[in-house]
Amino acid sequence: MTYGRPLGYDPDKALDAAMHLFWLQGYEATSLNDLLNAMGLSKSSLYQGFGGKKELFGRCINRYCDTYAGMFLDRLNKAESGHSFIEETLLMAANEARRSEFRRGCLLVNTASEFAQKDPAIAEHVSIGLNRFRGVFLAAVTRGQRDGDITTTVDADLLASYLMSSMGGLKTVVKGGADEQKVKDIVGVILRALE
Amino acid sequence: MTYGRPLGYDPDKALDAAMHLFWLQGYEATSLNDLLNAMGLSKSSLYQGFGGKKELFGRCINRYCDTYAGMFLDRLNKAESGHSFIEETLLMAANEARRSEFRRGCLLVNTASEFAQKDPAIAEHVSIGLNRFRGVFLAAVTRGQRDGDITTTVDADLLASYLMSSMGGLKTVVKGGADEQKVKDIVGVILRALE
Repeated sequence: MTYGRPLGYDPDKALDAAMHLFWLQGYEATSLNDLLNAMGLSKSSLYQGFGGKKELFGRCINRYCDTYAGMFLDRLNKAESGHSFIEETLLMAANEARRSEFRRGCLLVNTASEFAQKDPAIAEHVSIGLNRFRGVFLAAVTRGQRDGDITTTVDADLLASYLMSSMGGLKTVVKGGADEQKVKDIVGVILRALE
Repeated sequence: MTYGRPLGYDPDKALDAAMHLFWLQGYEATSLNDLLNAMGLSKSSLYQGFGGKKELFGRCINRYCDTYAGMFLDRLNKAESGHSFIEETLLMAANEARRSEFRRGCLLVNTASEFAQKDPAIAEHVSIGLNRFRGVFLAAVTRGQRDGDITTTVDADLLASYLMSSMGGLKTVVKGGADEQKVKDIVGVILRALE
């Protein structure tokens, strides 16, 4: 470890700026110049601090998960029950898809769609990231199974995957025009599978 | 009705060519020149036969539904039961998301994502189109409820919406890297809600 000149910028802030840009525009559509402008860095600082565009993108995906899977887990820890956390999370995810001004969706899902498993390194980042979100559903299901409000006849891990799938589906129907009541009704049916 | 000069082109083939281009590239990214090339038309023939780009797009969405919701309904009519049609459709939709070389997804969902309900005329086309697909699920659920292999404690219409949502979600998890066995397992859980 060396203690040279101070960086002259806040690396987390710079990373957040890059993350939001990638999230909004996608990987391909984001140029190096866009990134330099958003991060307020010179080309050499970017390469020195974050590697090239692809390495920076990987770090943005990690940053995204640290931030949002972290918030997800915080909510579970404060929730009344695993079951109520799941219900609230599904409703929240659907309504976010409606509210978000940019409707930019989930960085991980967008990335998966854009790269279509073509780039193994990026696909790996996405897979690890999705697993971090799934891990929170898994903890919620396990808690619900322990408390008796979620069935134990289905493997907790599988129920967590089902919930990830269900969350993705809800966002799709919201994009297609489903209103809040419709979402609530669908969530009711989703939860039937946990009985 | 007038019987003037013959068109000199097959309107259905031209429409199919435009539909596939919009499907592959999205609305915004498809230029008038792209359309003219793909359809093999002059600018004046396109405007005379199909209106402008937006009107053509609306007709492409209708064409998409005629083709694919039609195939969907054909499969239901030939299926052993409403329940088995639903299971096969979910598996098929997920595996198409995996196989498709272009992974271009569903034209309706892509359009909904791109327009984000910003354009009421396009949103209306998408909504009508999604309802045509949902209508096939509704017919399958109704058949299953009549035959006793799908619960009647939940409204058929709501179950159809749930299945549309579930289908969208499966495509999302496939994009995220879920393999065939994982998809099969998740479909098993989705079907629990119909019990």
